[in-house]
Amino acid sequence: MDYQGILNEIKVNVDCTKLPGEVASYIPELAKISPDKFGMHLYSVIGEEFCFGESQERFSIQSISKVLSLSLALLYEGENVWKRVGVEPSGDPFNSLVQLEYENGIPRNPLINSGALVICDILVSHLENPKAEYLQFVRKIAQNDQIDFDEKVAESEKAEGHHNRAMINLIKAYGNIKNDVEEVLDFYFYTCSVQMSCKELARTFVLYANHGCLIETGEQILSVKRTKRINALMQTCGFYDEAGEFSFRVGLPGKSGVGGGIVAVYPNMYSVAVWSPKLNEKGNSTAGMLALELLTNITGSSIF
Amino acid sequence: MDYQGILNEIKVNVDCTKLPGEVASYIPELAKISPDKFGMHLYSVIGEEFCFGESQERFSIQSISKVLSLSLALLYEGENVWKRVGVEPSGDPFNSLVQLEYENGIPRNPLINSGALVICDILVSHLENPKAEYLQFVRKIAQNDQIDFDEKVAESEKAEGHHNRAMINLIKAYGNIKNDVEEVLDFYFYTCSVQMSCKELARTFVLYANHGCLIETGEQILSVKRTKRINALMQTCGFYDEAGEFSFRVGLPGKSGVGGGIVAVYPNMYSVAVWSPKLNEKGNSTAGMLALELLTNITGSSIF
Amino acid sequence: MDYQGILNEIKVNVDCTKLPGEVASYIPELAKISPDKFGMHLYSVIGEEFCFGESQERFSIQSISKVLSLSLALLYEGENVWKRVGVEPSGDPFNSLVQLEYENGIPRNPLINSGALVICDILVSHLENPKAEYLQFVRKIAQNDQIDFDEKVAESEKAEGHHNRAMINLIKAYGNIKNDVEEVLDFYFYTCSVQMSCKELARTFVLYANHGCLIETGEQILSVKRTKRINALMQTCGFYDEAGEFSFRVGLPGKSGVGGGIVAVYPNMYSVAVWSPKLNEKGNSTAGMLALELLTNITGSSIF
Amino acid sequence: MDYQGILNEIKVNVDCTKLPGEVASYIPELAKISPDKFGMHLYSVIGEEFCFGESQERFSIQSISKVLSLSLALLYEGENVWKRVGVEPSGDPFNSLVQLEYENGIPRNPLINSGALVICDILVSHLENPKAEYLQFVRKIAQNDQIDFDEKVAESEKAEGHHNRAMINLIKAYGNIKNDVEEVLDFYFYTCSVQMSCKELARTFVLYANHGCLIETGEQILSVKRTKRINALMQTCGFYDEAGEFSFRVGLPGKSGVGGGIVAVYPNMYSVAVWSPKLNEKGNSTAGMLALELLTNITGSSIF
Repeated sequence: MDYQGILNEIKVNVDCTKLPGEVASYIPELAKISPDKFGMHLYSVIGEEFCFGESQERFSIQSISKVLSLSLALLYEGENVWKRVGVEPSGDPFNSLVQLEYENGIPRNPLINSGALVICDILVSHLENPKAEYLQFVRKIAQNDQIDFDEKVAESEKAEGHHNRAMINLIKAYGNIKNDVEEVLDFYFYTCSVQMSCKELARTFVLYANHGCLIETGEQILSVKRTKRINALMQTCGFYDEAGEFSFRVGLPGKSGVGGGIVAVYPNMYSVAVWSPKLNEKGNSTAGMLALELLTNITGSSIF
Repeated sequence: MDYQGILNEIKVNVDCTKLPGEVASYIPELAKISPDKFGMHLYSVIGEEFCFGESQERFSIQSISKVLSLSLALLYEGENVWKRVGVEPSGDPFNSLVQLEYENGIPRNPLINSGALVICDILVSHLENPKAEYLQFVRKIAQNDQIDFDEKVAESEKAEGHHNRAMINLIKAYGNIKNDVEEVLDFYFYTCSVQMSCKELARTFVLYANHGCLIETGEQILSVKRTKRINALMQTCGFYDEAGEFSFRVGLPGKSGVGGGIVAVYPNMYSVAVWSPKLNEKGNSTAGMLALELLTNITGSSIF
Repeated sequence: MDYQGILNEIKVNVDCTKLPGEVASYIPELAKISPDKFGMHLYSVIGEEFCFGESQERFSIQSISKVLSLSLALLYEGENVWKRVGVEPSGDPFNSLVQLEYENGIPRNPLINSGALVICDILVSHLENPKAEYLQFVRKIAQNDQIDFDEKVAESEKAEGHHNRAMINLIKAYGNIKNDVEEVLDFYFYTCSVQMSCKELARTFVLYANHGCLIETGEQILSVKRTKRINALMQTCGFYDEAGEFSFRVGLPGKSGVGGGIVAVYPNMYSVAVWSPKLNEKGNSTAGMLALELLTNITGSSIF
Repeated sequence: MDYQGILNEIKVNVDCTKLPGEVASYIPELAKISPDKFGMHLYSVIGEEFCFGESQERFSIQSISKVLSLSLALLYEGENVWKRVGVEPSGDPFNSLVQLEYENGIPRNPLINSGALVICDILVSHLENPKAEYLQFVRKIAQNDQIDFDEKVAESEKAEGHHNRAMINLIKAYGNIKNDVEEVLDFYFYTCSVQMSCKELARTFVLYANHGCLIETGEQILSVKRTKRINALMQTCGFYDEAGEFSFRVGLPGKSGVGGGIVAVYPNMYSVAVWSPKLNEKGNSTAGMLALELLTNITGSSIF
C-alpha cells in the first residue's frame, strides 16, 4: 500500500491551523507550544517508514507513557497486576475520584491517571532506581538511547498536581499504594514527561503491532498474550471519555496524551503516531483524531 | 479454515456442566431453562455454516435485540440518534441511574438499558405499528419469517420491570422520552423477548460482518459507515461491565443477553452465536465467553 | 408578648412584591397563582390567634403534607416506620435518585419525596380507603371539616410526575414499596394537593407545639416522644437543601412546600404559617423565610 | 434544677462497660485509651458546675475543635467564610470526596473534615503563628492557660492522614485552599489534637450558651448572631451522619469527636461535656449519646 501517498493526502486535507481546539495550558511548558505543530509518522512491522511535517520534533508524550509503564509492570508483576487495577473502561472524566470511592481504591484500568499511579507504585516496589530503569526499558523498545525525561515538565506537573495528589492519597487510604506517595508521584510525573517525536513514538509502539517482538531482532519483549491485553485496553480505555468515538472513527487501539500526541496500532501491520497540540474538549488532539480517521478510512485498516 | 473442526474442539474442551454461573432467575420464563443447554453456530460471509450442540433451539435473545433496535432507529432517524444517546462505554453496572442524573437524561450508549429505551422511543415515534414493523425488520435481516416475540417473556418482564420503569421515567423527566412511557416500555420488553436459535442469530448478525449487506442478495440494509459504528459500539459497550475483559479474551465486537446468548462479529469473515444459560457475576454466559475465546485463539481471528 | 404588633411590623418590613423569586410553574394550577399573595398566621398553644394579609386564602400545601402523612403512619406502624426510611438529612437536592441507589432503596428521611412515597406506601397498606381516611385525620387535627384535596392539582401532578414515578419504581425495585406503584403515587399526589389557608395550617400544626395534644380537648393525638421526633425531623430535614440556613435564620423546626407555604413550630408556645408563592432557588418561599426570620429575631424565639 | 442529682442518676443508669462500641483505633494514641473511661461535666451560664466520673481527665477533643476553629475564623474573615464553605448538612459519611467533586471544592459545612480544612486554610492565611495563636484563642475562651496540643497525637494523625490529604489536595485543585497543603494539614492535625477534660470542654463551650460572652467578664468574644450561626450548625451538622438522630434523642446543638467526647449547648442555660471512648458505628460515643439523652429527657431541656 502506498502509505506515503496516503500520508501526503492526509497532510493536504487536514489543516490543523483551521481546526478548533486549545493547547493544554495547566503548566507553562505545555502552554507555550505552538498550536500549529503537526506531524505524522507510520512505522510498518517490516520496518518501512512514512511521514510528514514535524514528525521528528519531540514533544511531551504524557499519558501515552501509561502504556509503557503498564508493559514494564507486567514484566515484573505478571497477572498480579490485575488484582490492583481493573481492565474496564471508566465512563467518567479521566480524573474522577468518585469511582475510586465506590470501588475501594481499585482503579478501573491502568490507562487512566489513578490506574497509572498504581502501576507506578508497583514499579517503585520492584525497581531499585525507578527512573533510570524505566528510561532503560523505554530506550530498549524504542531502540534509541536518546530518549529522556523533560525535568522541567516533570517538576511543573508536580507543583500543579493537586488532583493526582488527591487521587493517590485516596488510593493509599484504601491500602492500594504501598510506597510513599510523594516518591510514587515523583516517578509518575517523570514517566509522563518523556519526550519523543512521532518517529520515535511510532518506532516504540511497533512492538505492539508485532506481537510484543522487536522488529529487528525478533526478541520477545512482551508475550503475545500480554501484548493482546494491552492492545485490548488501548481499544476500550485509551481515549479518556472518547474511547467509543475513537473506536468508531479510527477503529484501532491507541492512546492519546495532553501534549497533543496520539499513537495507534494496527496489529500485524503498523504503528502510527501523530502530533498536533490543539485538544478537543475531551482532551484529545483534534487534528490527530482526524488524521488517523482519514488513514484508516483510506487504507481500510479499521478493524471494523 | 476448518471451522467445523475448531467448533468440535471447542465442544470437547468446554464442559458447560462443570463451569460456574447461575441461570437468570428474575422471571420464571428464564429461570426454568435448563442450565446445561449449549450450542454454537458460525456463519461465514460466503454462506458457509458450522455448528454444534443445541444450535437450533430458540432462546430469549434479550439485550442482543438492542443492536437490532439501534440498526432500525438509524434507518429512520439517521445521525440524529446521537443527539439523544451517546457512544461511550458506561463504566457502571448496566442499569445505573446515577449517570443519567449527572448527564441530564442522555444515556451513555444505545446498548445499555437506558439507551435502548431511548432508541425504542425513537422507533415508537416513527413506526405506525412498532411491534409488527420491528418484527418485519428482524425477519428481513434474518431472512426468516418464523422469528417472533415470546409474549409470556415480555409480559413477565413488564410485571417485574421496576428498574427499567424507574429509568424511563427519569429520562422522561429530562425530556428525552417523547412518547408515553408505558407504550415505550411495552415495545421495549417485546423487542427483548425475541426468540432465536444460535443458527438464526448468527444468520442475522452476518449482516454486520458483511458491511451491512445481505449476503445472498447483496442488498445494502445498513450503510458501511453505520455498520462500522454499530461494530465499534459492540466492541466498547456490548458486555455490560465486562467489555474490557471480552475485548481482551475474544477480541471481537459482540453483544450478550441475560438469556445466555452471545453473538460476535468478525468483520469481512463471519458472525458467530453461542448459547449457554449460566451467567457469570457480570451477567454474561460463562461457557459462551470461553467458547468464543477458544474460537479466536485457535483461529487467530482476534482483531488484536 | 404583643404578637399582633410584631406581625404588623413584619408586614410593613417585608414587601414581597420587591423580593426576588419565581412562582412554581411545573403545573398550571401553581403557575397561575398571583406572585404577590402574602399572608401570615400565628396560633398560640393557649388558643390566641394573630395574622395579617391573605391569611385565610387557601393554597396548595404540597410538601407540608409530608409531616401529616408521617404522623398518621406513626399511628399505624409505630417505630417500624424507621426500618423503611431514615432520620438523617439528605444533603442532596430534594429529589435525587443517587442516594437511593447507594442506600438500597431506603430514603434518608420521610420529609423528602422518596421518603414520603414510602410513608404513603405504608398508609396504603393500612388504610381501607386511603384518601378518605387521610382527609379524616387531617380534618381532625385541623379541627376543620372543610379541609379537602384539590383534585385538579393532584391530577396535574400525576401527569407531570415523571421524577417521582422514577423514584417510586426504583424503591420498588429494591423491595421497599409493597403496593402497586400507581396506587401509591395517586395517593401521594392527593396528599400533596391538600388546600389550606395560613390560619388552617397554623391551627393544624399547633399540635406539634403542644406535645401532640389537641389544644381544646387535650386529646393526645401523637405521643410526646413522636411529636419530638417529628419536630427534630422538621429541624434537620424540613427545607430541602436549605435546612441549615433556615435553622440559623429562623431557628425553629418547620416545613415548606412549593406552593409557597411554610409552617414553623415553637414548642410549648406557638405554631405559625406564612404564605408567599415566590420561591428562592432552593424552592422555599423568599418572603416566607424572611417573615419567619423577623418573627424569631424580634420575639427572641429562635431555639438557639 | 437539681443538676447534680440528675447527673448522679445518669451515672447510675448508664453503664458504659456494658454498652456496645469500639474505641477508635486508627492511631495508637487513641487505640490505647481504656474503653471504660466515663465522665460528664455541666457548666451553667451562672457559673455553677456539676459532674461525675473522670470529668477532669483530659482526652483528645478531635473534631470538637472544628467549632473552635470556625469561631476563630469568623473573627478574622467574617461572613466571607461562607463564600468558601457551606452551611448545609452533608448527608454523606463524614469524609466523602464525592460531594466535593460535585460542588467544585466547596465543602458543605465547616464541621466536616473538608470544611474544617478550608477553615484551617483561612486561619493559616490570617495568623502569623497559627498554632500559637490558635492555642491562645482556645485558652482565652477556656479561661485556662494549661490547654495544649498533644504533639504525639498530631504527628500520628499526620502519618495516617491519607484521606484528609486526598481531600485537601482535591480542594486545592478547585482553588479553595490558598496555602501550602502540608502546612494547612499540619495545623489542622494540631487543632484536632487539643487535649481537654470534660470540665474544661464544658467551661469552654459555655460561651456558646451565653450568646458569645465570657461568663465572668461579660466580654463579647463572638457576636450574638455568629454564636447563633454556630449553634445552628452544631444542630444540623455536628454529628457526622447521625445529626438527625442526635437532634431527636438529645435535642440540643452539639459536636462529637472520635476521641469519645461530646459537647452540647443549651442556649441561655448551660453547656455540658461527656466522655466515653467507645464509639457507635457512626463514630459517636455510645455512652455519651445516652447520657445526654437522659439529661435532656429528665430536665426537659430538649429544644423540641
